[in-house]
Amino acid sequence: MYEMTIRLRTGGKERLYEQIYEHIKKEIREGKLLAGERLPSTRFLAEYLQVARSTVDYAYGQLQAEGYIESRPCKGYFVCPIEELFGLEPEGGGPERRQGPKEQPDLHREAYGCRPESGPEGKIDFSPYEIDMSGFPFSVWKKITKNILTDANSDLFARGEAQGDLDLRETISRYLHSSRGVECSPEQIIVGAGNDYLLMLLEKILGRHVRIAMENPTYPRSYRIFRSFAYDIVTVDMDESGMRAETLERENVRAAYVMPSHQFPTGVVMPIRRRLELLRWAAGAGDRYLIEDDYDSEFRFQGKPIPALQASDEYGKVIYLGSFSKAIAPAIRISFMVLPWPLLQVYRQNCAFYSCTVSRIDQRILNEFIRDGYFERHLNKMRKIYRAKHDLMLEELAPFRGKFRISGENAGLHLLLTSKEPVCERRLTELAAGQGAAVYGMRAGMAPEVGAAKEGPETKASVLLGFGGMDTDQIREGIRRLKRAWGIAQ
Amino acid sequence: MYEMTIRLRTGGKERLYEQIYEHIKKEIREGKLLAGERLPSTRFLAEYLQVARSTVDYAYGQLQAEGYIESRPCKGYFVCPIEELFGLEPEGGGPERRQGPKEQPDLHREAYGCRPESGPEGKIDFSPYEIDMSGFPFSVWKKITKNILTDANSDLFARGEAQGDLDLRETISRYLHSSRGVECSPEQIIVGAGNDYLLMLLEKILGRHVRIAMENPTYPRSYRIFRSFAYDIVTVDMDESGMRAETLERENVRAAYVMPSHQFPTGVVMPIRRRLELLRWAAGAGDRYLIEDDYDSEFRFQGKPIPALQASDEYGKVIYLGSFSKAIAPAIRISFMVLPWPLLQVYRQNCAFYSCTVSRIDQRILNEFIRDGYFERHLNKMRKIYRAKHDLMLEELAPFRGKFRISGENAGLHLLLTSKEPVCERRLTELAAGQGAAVYGMRAGMAPEVGAAKEGPETKASVLLGFGGMDTDQIREGIRRLKRAWGIAQ
Repeated sequence: MYEMTIRLRTGGKERLYEQIYEHIKKEIREGKLLAGERLPSTRFLAEYLQVARSTVDYAYGQLQAEGYIESRPCKGYFVCPIEELFGLEPEGGGPERRQGPKEQPDLHREAYGCRPESGPEGKIDFSPYEIDMSGFPFSVWKKITKNILTDANSDLFARGEAQGDLDLRETISRYLHSSRGVECSPEQIIVGAGNDYLLMLLEKILGRHVRIAMENPTYPRSYRIFRSFAYDIVTVDMDESGMRAETLERENVRAAYVMPSHQFPTGVVMPIRRRLELLRWAAGAGDRYLIEDDYDSEFRFQGKPIPALQASDEYGKVIYLGSFSKAIAPAIRISFMVLPWPLLQVYRQNCAFYSCTVSRIDQRILNEFIRDGYFERHLNKMRKIYRAKHDLMLEELAPFRGKFRISGENAGLHLLLTSKEPVCERRLTELAAGQGAAVYGMRAGMAPEVGAAKEGPETKASVLLGFGGMDTDQIREGIRRLKRAWGIAQ
Repeated sequence: MYEMTIRLRTGGKERLYEQIYEHIKKEIREGKLLAGERLPSTRFLAEYLQVARSTVDYAYGQLQAEGYIESRPCKGYFVCPIEELFGLEPEGGGPERRQGPKEQPDLHREAYGCRPESGPEGKIDFSPYEIDMSGFPFSVWKKITKNILTDANSDLFARGEAQGDLDLRETISRYLHSSRGVECSPEQIIVGAGNDYLLMLLEKILGRHVRIAMENPTYPRSYRIFRSFAYDIVTVDMDESGMRAETLERENVRAAYVMPSHQFPTGVVMPIRRRLELLRWAAGAGDRYLIEDDYDSEFRFQGKPIPALQASDEYGKVIYLGSFSKAIAPAIRISFMVLPWPLLQVYRQNCAFYSCTVSRIDQRILNEFIRDGYFERHLNKMRKIYRAKHDLMLEELAPFRGKFRISGENAGLHLLLTSKEPVCERRLTELAAGQGAAVYGMRAGMAPEVGAAKEGPETKASVLLGFGGMDTDQIREGIRRLKRAWGIAQ
């Protein structure tokens, strides 16, 4: 059995569970802990280190979420096989690296197009696209805006840099580093008015005819956008770790669109092993790229945030997409894209004349909002609000576990319910609608080519239950209605 | 000689010169005044109508600018030949139509990418891309913003309509109607973050492979954008009326990009006859379109604004592009596009899922700014400021008339100086730079394919002198430097 020698520091910036997590991760990365090795039990380690057992649980939970270790029922925790430590830098890569992902708020998310459906009177809407606007810091936003709109800032009304103003790009780059482990210089960042626009720009950079892989199921909006290009889309089936890398090789694609931190809609967190496989695939040819849509990483309710795929990428193969739509508000049309250097060169040659699509005033407001700590506070506040909703959802949904598997928990603003018995997806949503509750069938939300498998009587159905935009009473009442609709004992 | 029976109304909304202008225009359109017919002299008509001679001058000037009449030296004013009154509705098309273009401020302009060149210390920059930001109404903008940022408006932070919020589109449509004669419903308007973005969207609507005609010379930014598409660009030589329609037919293009109200960089106003020829060409096949970039129409310093080409288009062939960049500020990333109905159908089918690129807060601010009359006041103020600069430029440039022809006056924020003798364009700009003044060679600003003709010792050179961003002292000092540089007597 593995001997752990770790000296815990108290009173420092790093919490105890983080120190344990970092230590074990380092041991695995450096090959001191080998695949298949068993870790000490949480009880044992807690006693040994003189910490609370929950502290060790937390550290193990994080390592498990990121795919470093796995839990085998009744046997304990074991190190996962990671055949090649491709793309991982030797640890000890400078103090700024080790700071890595801290328990800090994080950024960049895509708002999945709130569609304000005006359903029947009193209908309760489990939309996965809604966020809670009641927590928006109006007074702070107003104060910053007011201070910015003065004659002294008349330069703000002139046209700014095409990539976005340097101040904001510096702030974003610092933020990405500390919260997502993303390594980039401000030069690599392009600020744009929403992910849709940035994908349009990316089309100009990657070229007009790209064979691209997307997970099945995937995020419908991105699918539609790639389809509106001349892109040849290959939908790749997922296993429990996400997109399968061998399919990419076989299908001869040039790019793959992934959401490794919290896949939409399944909620799958891509484990480190699969991430490295994808990076290895991308490094196999000069023009292969991974498009990482990190739409959803701020609202993780357990442990540290899952690091971005880009954070493990040493070969410049990840195009990282982030947005403030979900973390602040969908109307704040500010997203950004981190380009690997070779693509940045292409951008500069072919696209640098496209003016920036975000007003400089808005850029400045956002910059001060992040820089002065308001964003972090806002995220902490919202994370609490969403965690309470998330926990309430799980609690209220407990009686559903007989008929449904619940997944996608611990992060984001929706859960996935999958029937254990074959059932018709449309029947589920219709029964819910009959009781005045809107739920979102996974297949219905997809383009026919994505939600590929034809639904038959033998198929299990999945529905998305979003909770971001609902208050406590609505959640309770909504789930009561679902119980009535689907015959779950009250 | 033509007998004019016109009853002038005083004290009404329409000014005297407008009534004369409208009357004669109607007579020409209805064929009561025929091509080649001579108009009464301004002196005669003024006496006959008992109005000031300048009033008639004004009316004739406007008719001339729009191409209805022409002045022949020592002979007087004559009606221009307009072979086919294609695209012109029979006059009397309802009172709202007759209100038509009034002397009102107008809208939509493209900011030609202020490039903040940090030249040598004290350098005076005649950039045609700069505007005067000193007049920006900070306090009003701040007041509107403050009122909007309240909890009561939390819906503003949710995602809005893809085409832009209806309120703003209604306001724009009313504004376009009254100031530019543009006939469109709010449904046809698409709001977007800048013209560059809207052209990207237009690519998705028109299709990937379009053979498009552009004037030579043309606006370099649009040229580069079309070239970044897979578009096949045909540069069409201009005569004094602008793009030649017969070339479009011969070159078998599908679309033509024009700036009829004030061509960049030449300043040519496209006369009505040429407009009708272009519209006739477009109506000749179902998928032909004219892209009208009305970048510059607010700042006309003499007479009424030149109506938009779209205002004469009855067959739904004009895609109208407007922007607030020049009229308000380049940092306000709000432009719009008016689509003919068939293209709107394509947009709805293929592009409606692209989210709007303009923040809803900014949309609301702009909407209130226009709706509550601030925009009109701002334009009137800026028009006065720019007119003063324009007049000062012409005055100071008077001694240049021996060596140069001055054109592009009476509108916009730049003038064009064309050498009467063959001279090297680069030599002109270099001499100016040597004296600390930056002027912009017409050919240098173009892509090589556009500024096509190779410059030789036999070529006449044109330079652009922008004055938007300069103050009075800078204009005086700048022109003093140009005199020294080019050997003009002080």
